[in-house]
Amino acid sequence: MRRMMIALALATASASAVMAAPAQTSATPKRAALAAAIAARHDTTVQDLRNWIALPTIAAMGMNVKEGPEYMRKLALDAGFQQAKIIESGGVPAVLATLDAGAPVTLGVYMMYDVKHYDPAEWQSPPLEGRLVERPGVGQVIVGRGAVNQKGPQTAFLAALQAFKATGRKLPVNLVLIAEGEEEIASTNLPNVVTNPEVAAALKRTVGVIGASALQNSQGTAGISLGAKGAVEFQLIVGGETSNRYPKSDVHSSVHARVESPAWRLVKALDTLVADDGHTPTIDGWFENVAPLTARQKEIVAEGLKGSSDAEAKAAVGVGRWINDEDLQTSSERLVSQPTVNIQGLVSGYMGPGGKTVLPSRAEAKLEFRLVPNMTRAEAEAKLKAHLAKRGFDDVKLVVSGGYGPNETDENAALVTAQRKTLDKAGIPYRLIVRNAGSWPGSVFTAAPISLPTGQFGLGRGNGAHAPNEWYLIKSADPKVAGIDEASLAWVDLLYEVAAAAKK
Amino acid sequence: MRRMMIALALATASASAVMAAPAQTSATPKRAALAAAIAARHDTTVQDLRNWIALPTIAAMGMNVKEGPEYMRKLALDAGFQQAKIIESGGVPAVLATLDAGAPVTLGVYMMYDVKHYDPAEWQSPPLEGRLVERPGVGQVIVGRGAVNQKGPQTAFLAALQAFKATGRKLPVNLVLIAEGEEEIASTNLPNVVTNPEVAAALKRTVGVIGASALQNSQGTAGISLGAKGAVEFQLIVGGETSNRYPKSDVHSSVHARVESPAWRLVKALDTLVADDGHTPTIDGWFENVAPLTARQKEIVAEGLKGSSDAEAKAAVGVGRWINDEDLQTSSERLVSQPTVNIQGLVSGYMGPGGKTVLPSRAEAKLEFRLVPNMTRAEAEAKLKAHLAKRGFDDVKLVVSGGYGPNETDENAALVTAQRKTLDKAGIPYRLIVRNAGSWPGSVFTAAPISLPTGQFGLGRGNGAHAPNEWYLIKSADPKVAGIDEASLAWVDLLYEVAAAAKK
Repeated sequence: MRRMMIALALATASASAVMAAPAQTSATPKRAALAAAIAARHDTTVQDLRNWIALPTIAAMGMNVKEGPEYMRKLALDAGFQQAKIIESGGVPAVLATLDAGAPVTLGVYMMYDVKHYDPAEWQSPPLEGRLVERPGVGQVIVGRGAVNQKGPQTAFLAALQAFKATGRKLPVNLVLIAEGEEEIASTNLPNVVTNPEVAAALKRTVGVIGASALQNSQGTAGISLGAKGAVEFQLIVGGETSNRYPKSDVHSSVHARVESPAWRLVKALDTLVADDGHTPTIDGWFENVAPLTARQKEIVAEGLKGSSDAEAKAAVGVGRWINDEDLQTSSERLVSQPTVNIQGLVSGYMGPGGKTVLPSRAEAKLEFRLVPNMTRAEAEAKLKAHLAKRGFDDVKLVVSGGYGPNETDENAALVTAQRKTLDKAGIPYRLIVRNAGSWPGSVFTAAPISLPTGQFGLGRGNGAHAPNEWYLIKSADPKVAGIDEASLAWVDLLYEVAAAAKK
Repeated sequence: MRRMMIALALATASASAVMAAPAQTSATPKRAALAAAIAARHDTTVQDLRNWIALPTIAAMGMNVKEGPEYMRKLALDAGFQQAKIIESGGVPAVLATLDAGAPVTLGVYMMYDVKHYDPAEWQSPPLEGRLVERPGVGQVIVGRGAVNQKGPQTAFLAALQAFKATGRKLPVNLVLIAEGEEEIASTNLPNVVTNPEVAAALKRTVGVIGASALQNSQGTAGISLGAKGAVEFQLIVGGETSNRYPKSDVHSSVHARVESPAWRLVKALDTLVADDGHTPTIDGWFENVAPLTARQKEIVAEGLKGSSDAEAKAAVGVGRWINDEDLQTSSERLVSQPTVNIQGLVSGYMGPGGKTVLPSRAEAKLEFRLVPNMTRAEAEAKLKAHLAKRGFDDVKLVVSGGYGPNETDENAALVTAQRKTLDKAGIPYRLIVRNAGSWPGSVFTAAPISLPTGQFGLGRGNGAHAPNEWYLIKSADPKVAGIDEASLAWVDLLYEVAAAAKK
């Protein structure tokens, strides 16, 4: 889920810089030895990734829901975690692993071991094979489900730990790893996992929780995200199943003269959710807890837009105008700050070419909220329910299929400082991102009772999350963009920078 | 198209009576000889029908659009029409045929030679074979596309003419036949046909225009329709194709924060078309020309409901309540009198199980008007356009895919009197139907400049119009229900009754 939002956030970025900076500027002692260990283990690391791709856990299908966490546990132990255990979640289990390096600082790491479903017929190579192919202008990539979302980037992280192990060195930080198997179904049970007493106690020792991603764009520019919107997916359903006012199956349309229409009822319910402008949410109390952007946040948006073209940004989305015909800065602020109610899909009655004289027996709208601080998922759900109830829409069924709230991390958090230093010292250009318009379940860490900084880190590239032919870069053709080994080395650097930043 | 509306109109009817009445009560001279001629030609008549079924004209697919009218022309000539010619319509051609019997009265006959499309995989026998099969409790039926809609009933009519020919007798009326090949695409060009000078002149000589149908229900009760609602099908479309405010293809849903949603825009446009009650049209001026039901029309509705059960009527549609929780009489009056705006279908974005985080690039509502006297199609279209324009919905594309206005015939018209007498004398129970809630293009005949009575006539049964395994009754197992030969004989009787009623 995360790849797309990162790509969106960076859609307007353009930059170029050298990837490898002089080693002496790094805080990492004996960096060359660690880099050599990473390089020496390259083939094994890639084989680890291929083995992981071959074992897809898909929560929605109940696929490998026992094998997946067990394999995750073994990966952690093999990478140097001294303890790794299965944590029951109420759904697909999570894994808690701890690595005690005797360090004063502890870093939390978030992983997902599940993947999105796939249709092999749509793939150019088998989605579970993890085939290595040359991608023109990009380099050698691995193709497979989960390659970039998130097994590839997570393997780069684990390979960094393997380098410490191979060189017999202690990590500069202790680690607490939380890995879930339900990210692709909106992390339904992750809140249960983080409030498990053992997990909560372990997390309490950390300076923050970071996830592994592949955050460089084709020019090599990385992003440092300071948060993400929350997302709640839900469906509104009206029909014979919700009230005996509506027919049980589609009937001839002439009957509408004396029989109520589920489709019209749905239109009437939907109409109350946004203003006549077609975008401003009108759910009662919707904006009550919405925090406006600070001056600094607007400044970060502006910095991120430097060198960007409004026309290119519009072309990337395929539109000629932003809402209210706003300029790029204003519309970018809106992108970051606006909590939305979106229609993902409308489904009712006859959907083929032309028309067909039926009165549909059922109408469904697939919707989704995007939430900003300080909204919560519970608040959004409760407000929607109250809003519909107040207007008498008892016959409109609400199904909330998943979601979580927004997350936000202070740009002065040690976790952020460490990312900046790592990138600065490596000479990697980057943009701060106020808030991803897309979403990831970081809110379970940033919200009470855990209340920690979060972030995403990782050099490298990939694409095709949730799509056929998903890929992750193994050996880069462009020195400005990291392959998997360089991504591992960046994790080594980051661990030292976290240790340094947290000590201050 | 017509079968379903008849079935609907009769859904609450129940009755039983003998089919064959004493011959001496009929106005038909030497009826026995004509009946014998019909019986003698039975196998040839059925083979005629099979040959016709084997030649499907499907306007929407451009199938047999030359062969269909040519075959229709030959059928007419073979049945005794002295002249039959192809009439260009602007689309699939029509056929005009005339039979001059030297009679003082001329009857118009409407036919359709086209059929709905079909998927052979869904059929138990090839849809073009016209296989004769036994249907338990019903009798021998012919199965094929067009069997009941309308080639079977029309063949029964033509077989009546063949009986006159075989017995060397003159018809009691002259005939003007108009046959179209676009009924299944809402008779798009029929208005052009009836205003063709030659056709209009021919129609002007008639006492009215009648179509051939199979109007008995399983108990043998027939219906005499005094009109039908009009129907206009249209689609409202919003998206990248209608405005550059909307994306050209589906994009990630987070983008909705700064990009307008076609789906919301469609909801907003739709919302203006009906009241918050979910059914009362609110298009500006919609009810301006709507004629309320007369006391006599309400009386006919009440007569038609005698012996009917509200619970059964609701069960037939699969609902527990009518609009406003009205009783059967009130809701039946509503069914007949209310001009509707119905949503046939909603199509936008992701339509599979659960959700998918997209902002759809397109949203479409498939709608349809049902019109009552004295509304017209042109009026309804113009009012919708003006309504949307007044509210600034310039980015909502309106596509009108077909339709026609309502039709109404006075119950004292000779055409109606003739039907009543024919059924009365044959001892067939029947119901008057104020107005079919469903539709047929009779309005092209009832509206100016033609301004004639219309109707539908025909004994017999069938089902499956527009569906797989469409059938029409050839030899009835129930004496109260007509097979094709009895249906032909009823046409003979009707022609004499038309001659008698029109002379008065």
